[in-house]
Amino acid sequence: MFKEQTILRIPGPTPVPPQVERAMARPMVGHRSGEFSALFAKTAERLKYVFQTEQDVFILAGSGTAGLELAVANTVQQGDKVIVCTAGNFGDRFTKICKSYGANVVEVTAPWGEGIDPLQVAVALAENPDAKVVFATHCETSTGVLHDIQGIAEQVGKTDAILVVDAVSSLGAAELPMDAWGLDIVVTGSQKALMLPPGLCFLAASPKAWNLIEKNEAPRFYFDLRAYRKQLAANTTPYTPSVSLIYGLAEVLSLIEEAGLPSIFARHKQMQEMTRAAIKALGLPLFTSDDVASPTVTSIGSNGYDVEVVRKHLKNDFNIIVAGGQAHLKGQIFRIGHMGYATPVDMLQVLSALEIALVKAGANIELGRGVRAAQEVYLQKQEVTAHV
Amino acid sequence: MFKEQTILRIPGPTPVPPQVERAMARPMVGHRSGEFSALFAKTAERLKYVFQTEQDVFILAGSGTAGLELAVANTVQQGDKVIVCTAGNFGDRFTKICKSYGANVVEVTAPWGEGIDPLQVAVALAENPDAKVVFATHCETSTGVLHDIQGIAEQVGKTDAILVVDAVSSLGAAELPMDAWGLDIVVTGSQKALMLPPGLCFLAASPKAWNLIEKNEAPRFYFDLRAYRKQLAANTTPYTPSVSLIYGLAEVLSLIEEAGLPSIFARHKQMQEMTRAAIKALGLPLFTSDDVASPTVTSIGSNGYDVEVVRKHLKNDFNIIVAGGQAHLKGQIFRIGHMGYATPVDMLQVLSALEIALVKAGANIELGRGVRAAQEVYLQKQEVTAHV
Repeated sequence: MFKEQTILRIPGPTPVPPQVERAMARPMVGHRSGEFSALFAKTAERLKYVFQTEQDVFILAGSGTAGLELAVANTVQQGDKVIVCTAGNFGDRFTKICKSYGANVVEVTAPWGEGIDPLQVAVALAENPDAKVVFATHCETSTGVLHDIQGIAEQVGKTDAILVVDAVSSLGAAELPMDAWGLDIVVTGSQKALMLPPGLCFLAASPKAWNLIEKNEAPRFYFDLRAYRKQLAANTTPYTPSVSLIYGLAEVLSLIEEAGLPSIFARHKQMQEMTRAAIKALGLPLFTSDDVASPTVTSIGSNGYDVEVVRKHLKNDFNIIVAGGQAHLKGQIFRIGHMGYATPVDMLQVLSALEIALVKAGANIELGRGVRAAQEVYLQKQEVTAHV
Repeated sequence: MFKEQTILRIPGPTPVPPQVERAMARPMVGHRSGEFSALFAKTAERLKYVFQTEQDVFILAGSGTAGLELAVANTVQQGDKVIVCTAGNFGDRFTKICKSYGANVVEVTAPWGEGIDPLQVAVALAENPDAKVVFATHCETSTGVLHDIQGIAEQVGKTDAILVVDAVSSLGAAELPMDAWGLDIVVTGSQKALMLPPGLCFLAASPKAWNLIEKNEAPRFYFDLRAYRKQLAANTTPYTPSVSLIYGLAEVLSLIEEAGLPSIFARHKQMQEMTRAAIKALGLPLFTSDDVASPTVTSIGSNGYDVEVVRKHLKNDFNIIVAGGQAHLKGQIFRIGHMGYATPVDMLQVLSALEIALVKAGANIELGRGVRAAQEVYLQKQEVTAHV
């Protein structure tokens, strides 16, 4: 009956707040009108707060992967050596994109579910002094690991290489101060912590990165950041922007500014801790250890039950959608997204429903025990974020 | 941050499904246009399924109380004797309205929280053979009691009196087959089980009731049902209808028809049983006994904690709104609404949040215990309604 009441607990797309939906429903305006230019320029300017940067933030119509390619296309040329840190599906995607641009890729890896050690990056940089770019994933969505970007940035900052960070499933949910950490390029998408539908990617670049971008001779047109910079200076875009999504973005930025990043980060941390406490209390295997766990997505393994059956029951009984595993983790893990338009009470809901789904899938768990652990975390921590 | 994410667990207004919100956002049309007349006539016709009647169902712009007055104004004249069954705030409202029309009111009462015994009504009818109308409340929203309308109808049906039923917080959630039970007038509102914003009331009348309505000489204009009947025959209304709410109502009826009343009634019963099992498991006092409990609202007393503090924590921490007590029950009980656009997973959410609020209010409860009881009810009963 209530087919629209889908409760999205996947790591993107995430639910869209109603005030954002309404903003997106406003009538079209011409994208070259003065009215839209003023909105666009102001919105791009407001994004600097989310990126914690003084650099321009560019907005493109495209998916998160378009954002990753945008970073590659502007910094990598045929035959360039690059270092890609990868311990999951989205790290691997950087490798694929770099290779498609003819790069010579050196990979720094860790097992899926673990974090990349910045010292590995230091070693790779020492062994490959000609590497021009280091690519790293902040939140590896496929595993639920939050990689140590600050530590990696410290190593890259000692060299002439630039650091490109995939922050698609982290920016606006986890601390990632671009300027303070010396990140050269940060990329994100609209459909994760930024609470919008998919369709926009965002990129900011440091002066060090711009030095490389300006010299880069790789063929590119839609993805040529130089065109976006030139047009942003004129309050517009080189190609047609996604007007509705810009309307929605302006509304999202009001929500973010009103709450403030510290409060938003604390809320995500609280949802993460509630989720992990519940999973531990239920005796289920967490796929990541506490020290590398992401505040936006939690991966859970199986101690015997079929994770796909659990997902099926959550969907059929409650219209709750959680994600499965990707690549070789398909059928091995499931992933609960807790980012964007979600609060602790949403975690109580998904966890209480999950317990029922687990019982229906034959898991040996005690009903209510996970919820209780999450409630206890909330009661211990709630003074931090209460209702944000 | 997410001030719009109010989780309404009061017994009305209830949440509005997004497809209904969108339907209501359609542009205005003239209410005398052929387009609107066709929609209005069809929508009124479709309401017969919800009322389980072959009689016309009238739609007025007005609150639930307007619907109650509509019934009184068309059946009660100065000096008429009427019997009002009352064991709560909304039963009392019938008395007040009847007295404002100059009626001689005989009350049949029960303590708040208990049900009216149909035999009491039989006695009152025997003692007052000149009573023209019996007024009864199906779900008494102030206490959470579902009164035995079928039993009362059996008694009234033996006499010349007609039975008027306030079904504002029950129609579309609890079984109330107007024709099969021989109910003469059934009144409801838009903002309860019908999942619309407030603003519409609905009334259907039996031939026996129409006999009285036609002879009634009480002064009335906006509330004159004869005008509505005449205009409905011409596919329209005597006065301007609430165009947006009619748009929304048409969408609501699609949702109801798709699910079917039996499934909807079962879902409400399931939510009721989950809620009551949780409250019992937590050791809190239920204000009503199982045999008279409503499937749309559950009233809960206190065993020491301050119910207003519990409500405050639910609101401040989770933006969950539950109702307080009315009249002398203010501060004595709180009420959880579980009707309309709500499903079992919403009960898991409100109950898990309630446990936290209770702990914060100093109640001596065991976290997770209520949720577990609700989960167990769900698992036992879920084959009935699963995801409706």
